[in-house]
Amino acid sequence: MINRQMVLKSHPHGIPLPSDFEMVEADVPNPGPGEMLVRNLYFSLEAAIRGWLDGKANYFEPIPLGGAIRGPSVARVVKSNVEGFEPGEIIFGLHHWEDYSLSDANTVLLSKLQPKDGIPLSYYSGGLGGSGHTAYVGLHEIGKIQAGDTVVVSAAAGATGSMACQIAKLRGCRVVGIVGSADKARLITEELGADAAVNYKHCDDLAAAISAACPEGVDVYFDNVGGRTLDAVLTCMNTFGRVIGCGMISDYNNQDNPTPIYNMWKLVEKELTLRGFLLYSYMDQVPAAMDQLHTWLEQGELKILENITEGLPNAGWAYSEMMKGATIGKNLVKVDSE
Amino acid sequence: MINRQMVLKSHPHGIPLPSDFEMVEADVPNPGPGEMLVRNLYFSLEAAIRGWLDGKANYFEPIPLGGAIRGPSVARVVKSNVEGFEPGEIIFGLHHWEDYSLSDANTVLLSKLQPKDGIPLSYYSGGLGGSGHTAYVGLHEIGKIQAGDTVVVSAAAGATGSMACQIAKLRGCRVVGIVGSADKARLITEELGADAAVNYKHCDDLAAAISAACPEGVDVYFDNVGGRTLDAVLTCMNTFGRVIGCGMISDYNNQDNPTPIYNMWKLVEKELTLRGFLLYSYMDQVPAAMDQLHTWLEQGELKILENITEGLPNAGWAYSEMMKGATIGKNLVKVDSE
Repeated sequence: MINRQMVLKSHPHGIPLPSDFEMVEADVPNPGPGEMLVRNLYFSLEAAIRGWLDGKANYFEPIPLGGAIRGPSVARVVKSNVEGFEPGEIIFGLHHWEDYSLSDANTVLLSKLQPKDGIPLSYYSGGLGGSGHTAYVGLHEIGKIQAGDTVVVSAAAGATGSMACQIAKLRGCRVVGIVGSADKARLITEELGADAAVNYKHCDDLAAAISAACPEGVDVYFDNVGGRTLDAVLTCMNTFGRVIGCGMISDYNNQDNPTPIYNMWKLVEKELTLRGFLLYSYMDQVPAAMDQLHTWLEQGELKILENITEGLPNAGWAYSEMMKGATIGKNLVKVDSE
Repeated sequence: MINRQMVLKSHPHGIPLPSDFEMVEADVPNPGPGEMLVRNLYFSLEAAIRGWLDGKANYFEPIPLGGAIRGPSVARVVKSNVEGFEPGEIIFGLHHWEDYSLSDANTVLLSKLQPKDGIPLSYYSGGLGGSGHTAYVGLHEIGKIQAGDTVVVSAAAGATGSMACQIAKLRGCRVVGIVGSADKARLITEELGADAAVNYKHCDDLAAAISAACPEGVDVYFDNVGGRTLDAVLTCMNTFGRVIGCGMISDYNNQDNPTPIYNMWKLVEKELTLRGFLLYSYMDQVPAAMDQLHTWLEQGELKILENITEGLPNAGWAYSEMMKGATIGKNLVKVDSE
């Protein structure tokens, strides 16, 4: 049996191009003791992957040239030598962009999924997966949101941002989303319940625009982008405000020349807390997040936005589109042949 | 009776000059209902005052031209219409650079002092006052120091830094101080127990120098300076590291052109917590801090470094010297005539 793999062909300069990736074929591996073979169904495209393409250690080892791209997937267990995992079960974990992966008890983000009837499996890669969990844990554990807080979310039409907007709204917060197009602004206010949107590409003075959209100041900022957006929001924060450091996508394509931050003095003046987090450090909180997200979804209070690309060979193209900021919601690749 | 006052003559450009201040004479005010008249004994010179000299709101209102400089003092109650405060008692509070101030129950930082025999009154303006309390609260409440942590302290020979070095050491941490002269480096390692010192003026690559002094990485950074020092330390932080945002003196003389921070990505990558604080938000923790500091002082485990300038007319000069970075330890002005 053949295992198609999408590997790193060249280190991207700036935004990854489809040509930075290529398909190769390998044999399907045999699981050794303590391992299982899984069939990948959906890959979750993550901004964090960009950091692994540069050949430098990030919070994971870099992906070598010729190596399969590392990324989280929803997968079905095919053969298992791992206790507690049986063929046919559906799991989530950090695997590779390929038809079949080896997984084991130490796989990062590994969890067994119990998909509910009527809920698309793809949701477990996005709104009910890492993106939804990240939004939930970030807002509650890191941001300590309270009803009545003004919460600003950047990349608000993205996978995590679209969930963060809705969750904050469901918790009784006033929500302002920062986006990069008029379509996205309309989407988050009309479909996701955000109270206001700021289009960062259409304002001369971003801080003034955020300030105008947040007349009572900003209590919590869910930061997916870093850079000049973070710098602008810092000037709008209320005393004891919290910044949830979830991602800094504005610099992911340009890590050697990060955007400078000028307003760090606000940290002291406003007694702010800026706290970064990575979901895998908070896996103990995922079950509660999952329960709540399921409940909201069943009650019709949550919309899961997906952008599904069909076919493993198109994964590089799909990733490039996402990193350009051209997409809305959760970007997934559905593995085609089986 | 005459009340000498040191007032703001001109908004400083960069480092304040003695000529930015001038002495004037006024009448001693009469305390109204709910007020008390206090005789100032020692003024505590604070970097934070710099932020009030520019005519722009900071975390307090700016000091107007011709207005007396606002600053904390140790003072003796002369007349009192405030319940619980009697003439002759010694208090601490945010007053003005003058012989006599009006104080009341709402005075910022107001507390009644119970000076112990054998302890100089001046200590209550520094090591046993705001500087010591700031160091104590910052390390414990904000930085959550644990024995075995590597703690880096900037402006380590300063009023707050010198206390932070000693407190962290007494709590079983490894302490590395960042200073601006060889004399200060010697002082903190030979007199204050710091395990190593880094002279930021004598290294081409500050991050590399800090890294070399902290072979196990940095768990807690007590930041008094911000700017390029903060930027360098960010690259040395361990996962889950804490940055105590106490002050950003490197930019106090130049608030319109703050030093950019380039390494904010570390916030997410290392899951850091950066938390700013101002002592007056944590006054409930001051009594416990005071008890512990008294105990250590009586046991001979704590050194209080002071630089006392005699005479209210020299307050502007003393402040200028401090803001140049020319001094060591706590800078005080002893009010002369009585």
